[in-house]
This record gives sequence, structure tokens and C-alpha cells, in this order.
Amino acid sequence: MHRSRLTAALVDVPEEHYREVVQFWSGALGSAAEIDDDDPDYASIGEPLPGFQFMVQQVDAPARIHLDIETDDVDAEVERLEELGAERVEKNETWWVMRDPAGNLFCVIRVQDPAAFERSARTWD
Amino acid sequence: MHRSRLTAALVDVPEEHYREVVQFWSGALGSAAEIDDDDPDYASIGEPLPGFQFMVQQVDAPARIHLDIETDDVDAEVERLEELGAERVEKNETWWVMRDPAGNLFCVIRVQDPAAFERSARTWD
Repeated sequence: MHRSRLTAALVDVPEEHYREVVQFWSGALGSAAEIDDDDPDYASIGEPLPGFQFMVQQVDAPARIHLDIETDDVDAEVERLEELGAERVEKNETWWVMRDPAGNLFCVIRVQDPAAFERSARTWD
Repeated sequence: MHRSRLTAALVDVPEEHYREVVQFWSGALGSAAEIDDDDPDYASIGEPLPGFQFMVQQVDAPARIHLDIETDDVDAEVERLEELGAERVEKNETWWVMRDPAGNLFCVIRVQDPAAFERSARTWD
């Protein structure tokens, strides 16, 4: 038995658009942007809704938006989503990149927000 | 003075992937899919968080994810976002399609969820 929930939307943009896209979404959502000192490829734009993160990420790929699912068991969640029709793309240190049946990328990550996770995660047998 | 807030994420997919992607996200998020009788191009997958809608939409374009911003003044919000660096793409009956500075599409729509709007919309002068 494990749990999961949708936890974030990320705007992925190539380097040449990173700063202006961070500024745009910060202004659009009215939330200050915080670029991660340890990993400047990520800028947090806060929580547009309680328990839901919004980020801009610098990527070496065309612009796109992807979603993150957080879970208390990454391996079990990846397996569950694979059975539903997703494909594994790449395993990173602690998370998996997957794609849905139409090719949309999403990530399966460890729990980032324990309080929100307790409030709204679904349980899977 | 007007208000706006992030209100939805939509998975846009070509016709050949529509049904399987609806089923996939319905299973992934654990929420029944409801295809709109009046507009079968849209399938609602419920609210993964309170006040935040998740939908799958059939489009004549490559797969992508887009976000919706709801507002009590579409024209004023489009103008505000344009000043922040977005571009107008297309006006539909009651909403605008825009793109962020990296080309990611998003929509500016009328208020869909008045209660959530009252709870979490930001006010712009």
C-alpha cells in the first residue's frame, strides 16, 4: 500500500528564455521568484494554491510544461503508473521521469510537502 | 482593478491518444473522468486539489500541457499579462489563448469556480 498526489506544475524552458519566463510567471501569479542557490536551474514561484507548487526550470529541450506527482513509495508508484499506460523515461537520484500515453513528460518524486501530502494524498493498494 | 488566479491544468492530446490519456490520468489521480456531453473534446478529471481543475482536451496539435488562469475581467487580465511579456495568440468566444515568453500556451478564461476564486484570487490595480 502506498500513497501519491499531484504536487506541482513546472514550466520548462531553454536557457535563453529562463530569466524572462521566471519574471513573467512571478508577475502573472503575483508571487516572488526564488532561484535555488544549490540548483540555479530551478526557480520557485510559490504556491498558487495551498499545497501546490509552481516552478520554472531551465532545461536543454524545447519549452513545455510538466507535472510532478509526489509519493511515499517512488518504485511502487512508478510501477502503478506503468500499469496504467505510462512509460519510464529516466531514473534520477531519487525520482523518475515518465511520459503519459501521448508523450507528455511528468515526474514521480518523493514527498516534498508532508502536511499537504497527509491532507490530500490518495491511497493505492 | 481586477482579480485572477491559476485555476486548471489541461493535458492536450491529439485525437488518436484522447481516450487512453483520459483513462491514464483518471487512474493516475484516482478520480473518475467525465466527458462533457456538450463538448466531447473535454474530459474533466476532477479536482486534484480543492479549487484546481484537471482536464484532458482533444486538440489538433502535438501533445502538451497548458494552464488556465481565471479572471473577473478577461480583457484587463490579457492586457496585464501582455505587459508582463506574454503574447496574444487567439481570441475565442469568451477567452483568450496566450503564450508565455518561451512559447508555452495558456488560456485566460472567465471565473469558473466562484467560491475558490473568492478564496484565492489576487487583486491587480
